[in-house]
Amino acid sequence: MKIAILPGDGIGPEIVAEAVKVLKVLDLNFELETALVGGAAFEAHGHPLPEATLQLAKDADAILFGAVGDWKYDTLDRPLRPEQAILGLRKNLGLFANFRPAICYPQLVDASSLKRELVSGLDILIIRELTGDIYFGQPRGRRIATDGHFPGAEEAFDTMRYSRPEIERIAHVAFQAARKRGKRVTSVDKANVLETFQLWKEVVTEIGQQYPDVALDHMYVDNAAMQLVKAPKKFDVVVTGNMFGDILSDAAAMLTGSIGMLPSASLNDKNQGLYEPSHGSAPDIAGKGVANPLATILSAAMMLRFSLNQPEAAARIEQAVDKVLSQGLRTPDIYSDGTTRVGTVEMGDAVVKAL
Amino acid sequence: MKIAILPGDGIGPEIVAEAVKVLKVLDLNFELETALVGGAAFEAHGHPLPEATLQLAKDADAILFGAVGDWKYDTLDRPLRPEQAILGLRKNLGLFANFRPAICYPQLVDASSLKRELVSGLDILIIRELTGDIYFGQPRGRRIATDGHFPGAEEAFDTMRYSRPEIERIAHVAFQAARKRGKRVTSVDKANVLETFQLWKEVVTEIGQQYPDVALDHMYVDNAAMQLVKAPKKFDVVVTGNMFGDILSDAAAMLTGSIGMLPSASLNDKNQGLYEPSHGSAPDIAGKGVANPLATILSAAMMLRFSLNQPEAAARIEQAVDKVLSQGLRTPDIYSDGTTRVGTVEMGDAVVKAL
Ligand SMILES: CC(C)[C@H](C(=O)O)[C@@H](O)C(=O)O
Ligand SMILES: CC(C)[C@H](C(=O)O)[C@@H](O)C(=O)O
Repeated sequence: MKIAILPGDGIGPEIVAEAVKVLKVLDLNFELETALVGGAAFEAHGHPLPEATLQLAKDADAILFGAVGDWKYDTLDRPLRPEQAILGLRKNLGLFANFRPAICYPQLVDASSLKRELVSGLDILIIRELTGDIYFGQPRGRRIATDGHFPGAEEAFDTMRYSRPEIERIAHVAFQAARKRGKRVTSVDKANVLETFQLWKEVVTEIGQQYPDVALDHMYVDNAAMQLVKAPKKFDVVVTGNMFGDILSDAAAMLTGSIGMLPSASLNDKNQGLYEPSHGSAPDIAGKGVANPLATILSAAMMLRFSLNQPEAAARIEQAVDKVLSQGLRTPDIYSDGTTRVGTVEMGDAVVKAL
Repeated sequence: MKIAILPGDGIGPEIVAEAVKVLKVLDLNFELETALVGGAAFEAHGHPLPEATLQLAKDADAILFGAVGDWKYDTLDRPLRPEQAILGLRKNLGLFANFRPAICYPQLVDASSLKRELVSGLDILIIRELTGDIYFGQPRGRRIATDGHFPGAEEAFDTMRYSRPEIERIAHVAFQAARKRGKRVTSVDKANVLETFQLWKEVVTEIGQQYPDVALDHMYVDNAAMQLVKAPKKFDVVVTGNMFGDILSDAAAMLTGSIGMLPSASLNDKNQGLYEPSHGSAPDIAGKGVANPLATILSAAMMLRFSLNQPEAAARIEQAVDKVLSQGLRTPDIYSDGTTRVGTVEMGDAVVKAL
């Protein structure tokens, strides 16, 4: 089994180092190979996703990814910017199914902006389609408008689109995930305005008939954003498109109060997957040794479960993380009075010890 | 001065009746004319926005709108569904500038899902472009895919687009609004992925140079959704496109805890406007006399200020609403222990009395 290690930018290298430490302790005889990605790859090779990195990722059974991005690359042309690496990996590996759990850890319930009773026990799974929608739809670009409000003016445009089989496969992923949990799927669309999401709603409804044991409901994206704020615990599995999923999964992660704790997985139809923390590269705290490595460590656990067929090892890591939280260890992002403040390396060491 | 009164569906007629009562007490010699819209218009005339209603709206200086929609119309073809009325009014009247304040009333701070300290004193203004973007972009529809992941499969598609002058005019609206408030504009985009929002960001930046007294920053939409949940008070004026604005303005409204209190205005370049509560038609409580009329009454106040040049009358209404809240009167949606529960009509009467 081969794991590609892509630390990336900002805090990426620090947090990935801790996850690698944890993986090594498990002594599972994986082959780990590291490569540059994002801004780091641009600096060294002039491209955020060099051919060698892409090839390594393709050849691996799983990818452990840190984070990419830094303000200093904002002025680069879009194809050279760090985030193109993650878009390129998703597209080239066909990683269409993004799993974004939003879990509120009992030890961290007070870190949420929401009132305790609204988030305590929260456990939502957002499933975001990741290779379609307006992210990749063609045509896109700039042109002179020939109709609309200002014919003759310069305009920019993008194409939102979903095909029936794209919707079918992500719907199956959602229903199957729901079967293993609360048996409820909320499909989020904007069928009242968009042709794309009218089809989305129809197809999800059709696929739902194959899962009579799972309850399906439909919600407009604006309402979903409201219900997430108002009563997040009402959700079990949420399935939606790439663009809406980008927004809702981040909102949901943030309202748990512990985005520094939340892993994510992006899978293709061969269960090959990219695993990364839900948070970003946080260039402001990079190199200071204060970043929370737990989301990355938990991403490694997801990787063991989903792509490497090691559910026991995954569970061991998750229990170890639970233990260090119960011991009161906290990186600054989740620190509160009465707990013990630790840095990135100490947190990683504590997880290793708990294993 | 002529006001078109469009009560609509669900709780629309009840809440608009209270706002009309308030307007009449002011004795400002407006001509009020009522027409059917939404499901109610479909029932009577077979179309959610009959020609006569549209004509009335066009001829009026302002439109007071209740709400449209009901589950029972869900199976109608999209062009006949109630929400087409509101889209048709926006498009036909060119109502491109949507003002969505998200204010946390001091009397209602505990109604928020967010912790008190995060929302107390909250006062954000979300400015949403309302006649462009993927809402109206052509082409859209269904076809057989010729490229993408599944060539040959059925697909649905929509076109996102913005032209330079469309972005310029909404940017001016935002900067001018910011000048009268906290002098900060956050422009929300997804320039890292979308061509449309790359142009958006460029144009907003350009227009911003004409407002050196207003601070401008840019935020990706996923991050904006997170920051709204985490630290909403950091925002002053937020300006964004139609689709992102739909999602963010609803999330922001909900997190104040008092969506039943929040008005909205949609203006065109002649200051003709449509005024409506930020909440929906709530068919589940329609006809029960429990709906909160205050958002509609405050929408009438916005109408007096923005379209009818009656700022004193607007301020009188706003003070009256503040007074009834301070008296402890609450409809069920904002009720809490120790306050007095009242119905729709009693609340309207109380505002009239406070005037
Ligand atoms: C960096 C960006 C292109 C990316 C996205 O929009 O998908 C990120 O926000 C994410 O959610 O992984
Ligand atoms: C009803 C719907 C078409 C509408 C929109 O999406 O604009 C509504 O959600 C709104 O925000 O006014």
